[in-house]
Amino acid sequence: MPTAYVKQEIDADGNFQRQQSQFLGHFGSGSDDFPLEAGRYRLIVSYACPWANRQLIALKLLGLEDVFSIGVVDPVRPKDLGRTDWAFSLNPDCKDPVLGISYLSDAYLHTNPDYVGRFTVPALIDTQTGKVVTNDFLGMLRIFEKEWQDFHKEGAPDLYPDELAQEIDQLNAIIYDDINNGVYRAGFATSQDAYEAAFDRVFNRLDLLEERLSKTRYLFGDQITDSDIRLYVTLARFDTAYYNGFNLNRNRLIDFPNLWTYARDLYQEDAFKSTTKFDHIKKHYHLSATINPHQILPKGPDQSGWEEAPDRAKLSQKD
Amino acid sequence: MPTAYVKQEIDADGNFQRQQSQFLGHFGSGSDDFPLEAGRYRLIVSYACPWANRQLIALKLLGLEDVFSIGVVDPVRPKDLGRTDWAFSLNPDCKDPVLGISYLSDAYLHTNPDYVGRFTVPALIDTQTGKVVTNDFLGMLRIFEKEWQDFHKEGAPDLYPDELAQEIDQLNAIIYDDINNGVYRAGFATSQDAYEAAFDRVFNRLDLLEERLSKTRYLFGDQITDSDIRLYVTLARFDTAYYNGFNLNRNRLIDFPNLWTYARDLYQEDAFKSTTKFDHIKKHYHLSATINPHQILPKGPDQSGWEEAPDRAKLSQKD
Repeated sequence: MPTAYVKQEIDADGNFQRQQSQFLGHFGSGSDDFPLEAGRYRLIVSYACPWANRQLIALKLLGLEDVFSIGVVDPVRPKDLGRTDWAFSLNPDCKDPVLGISYLSDAYLHTNPDYVGRFTVPALIDTQTGKVVTNDFLGMLRIFEKEWQDFHKEGAPDLYPDELAQEIDQLNAIIYDDINNGVYRAGFATSQDAYEAAFDRVFNRLDLLEERLSKTRYLFGDQITDSDIRLYVTLARFDTAYYNGFNLNRNRLIDFPNLWTYARDLYQEDAFKSTTKFDHIKKHYHLSATINPHQILPKGPDQSGWEEAPDRAKLSQKD
Repeated sequence: MPTAYVKQEIDADGNFQRQQSQFLGHFGSGSDDFPLEAGRYRLIVSYACPWANRQLIALKLLGLEDVFSIGVVDPVRPKDLGRTDWAFSLNPDCKDPVLGISYLSDAYLHTNPDYVGRFTVPALIDTQTGKVVTNDFLGMLRIFEKEWQDFHKEGAPDLYPDELAQEIDQLNAIIYDDINNGVYRAGFATSQDAYEAAFDRVFNRLDLLEERLSKTRYLFGDQITDSDIRLYVTLARFDTAYYNGFNLNRNRLIDFPNLWTYARDLYQEDAFKSTTKFDHIKKHYHLSATINPHQILPKGPDQSGWEEAPDRAKLSQKD
C-alpha cells in the first residue's frame, strides 16, 4: 500500500528516512516577517495526516481555532498528476476559498520555484502573499503553545509547562522515532530487515507505553500535555491504517488494555474527537496507494468502541 | 494483494466467480480406470491452500496418509512464468521426486494439452500415467471418506455419518458459499459493491456460527465431521491471510470467543495441527501477490494463542 515517499527518502538498506522540512519561517513573537496577527495565517491540513492532526488538536485545546484559518485537502491524493500532491477538491470549485489554489504544490512552488521534495501538510501559509511560512510539523506545535499565549482562550491548558519541558522533550523524541515516524519506517521499508527492525521498535515501545499508562491517566499524570497529543495521533490511526496498511500486525490498539482506554479517554474530549475523522484516515491510507488496483476501501474495522467509556479517571491522583 | 484469479473469473459487476474443476475422474470403488489401490495415487497439495488442507486433514484423521502419497508445492508461486502456476521448488532438484515434474501445469497439460484455466491444488495424479485424475476439491473429500473405508485405520471416525448426511450437505453448501469461497469473493472483488456484499456475507455467517458453537463442541455435537474440516481450514487462515490480505477486517478470528476456542480445539488434534503450516499460509498469501512490490512478509500476527487450552470439553453432551 504505502508509496507516498520519494526515492530519495529510502536509504541503501531499505530504511525510510523522512525528508527534512525546508520552510522554517518563524511566525510568532519577535518575528518581523511573520508577526503575531490573528486571521493572517492559514493552516493547510489533511484530516488523514497525523502531523496535521496534532496541530488541529492543539489549536482547539488552546482556543486558537479562530486565530488561524484552516484549509482542508482531499484525503485521497490525485493519481494523474505525475507527482505526489494534495488537492483542494473537497471545495465546490476545487480551489481553496482563501488562497485560490487547486493544489498544495501551487503554494510551495509560489514560495520557491526550485522546491524539490514532497509537498506536505501541515503547511502554514501567509495569506498576504500566499507563500508558505513553515511546513515544520515538529516546531509548529510549540509555537502555538508558547508564543500565541495572548490569543489562547481563558483557562487554556499549558501543554508544555516549564517544569516538565525537559521530560516532555525527551519523551517526544522517543515518541517521534519509535511511534510517529516509526510506523512509517515499517510501512515504507523496502527490505525485510528494515521492516522487521521497525516493526520491533514500534511494538517494543508500545509495550513500554502500555506499562507506563497503567499507572497514570495521561503521560505526565493528570494533565494533558504536548506529548499526549503526539502519541494520540498515531494511536488513532493504528487499527484503521497501520495494522493493515503498514503491516504492523502484532496487535491492534484495541488489544492493549491501557493504551486503548487512554486513547479513548483523549478521543472523548472535543478537541480530539472533532479533529479525528476516521473516514479521511481510511480513505487516505487505503485509496492513495497505487498498489490497490481496484481501489477497494476496507469496510472495517469497527470504530464504535471509541465511544465506550474509558474509565480512566480512577487513575487520577486528584481527590 | 490478491491476484491469483484469471480474468474470466470476474463477472461484469466485479464479483469473483470461481472456475469449475475440469478433471472429475472417479478414483474409488467401482471405477475401472482408477480403482482402489494403495500407493497408486499422488495428491499434490500446497499447505497454504485451504482446499488442499481439507484433504490432508481427512487423510490423517482416516489413517490414509500411507495409502496416498503426498507431493508439496512451494507456497510462493513463481512470478517469472507469465502464468499462474505452482512449482515443486521445495525439492532439491526442483522436481517432484515421484512425478519428475517441475510445475503443476506439467501434469495438467500432460493430461489435456488444451487445458485452459488455473492450475489448482489439490490435484490427484495417477502415478502410472502422470495424468490428473481429479482436481475436484469439493468431491475428493467425500471419496476418501466413503469409498476408501477398507483402508481406513481402525477406529477411524465416520466423518459423514448416514444419519447426518443431509444436514452435513446443507451446512457444507452454506460454509462453501459464505465462508470458504466467501472470503475469496471479498478478497478478489474488483468493485466496492461486490466487496462489501461479500464482506457482509462472511461476517453475518460467522456471527451465526459463533452462536451455534456456543452450544456444541463441534458443528454436529460431540463428533468431528466433514463440516468441521471445511470450516476449520478457513478459520485457520483468517487472521494471517484474510483479515489483512482480503480486507476482511471487521473482526479477527480471535475476537470471536466461541469460534476461536473451537478452532483451537480442532488445531490441537494432530491431524489438524500437523497439516496447518502458518509459515506456508503467510508466505503464500502475502508473497504471491504481484502488488507487494518489495515482497515484505508481515511479521504478525502472533500465533502463540493457538496453543492455549480451548476448554471446550465442557460443551460435550457426554458424561
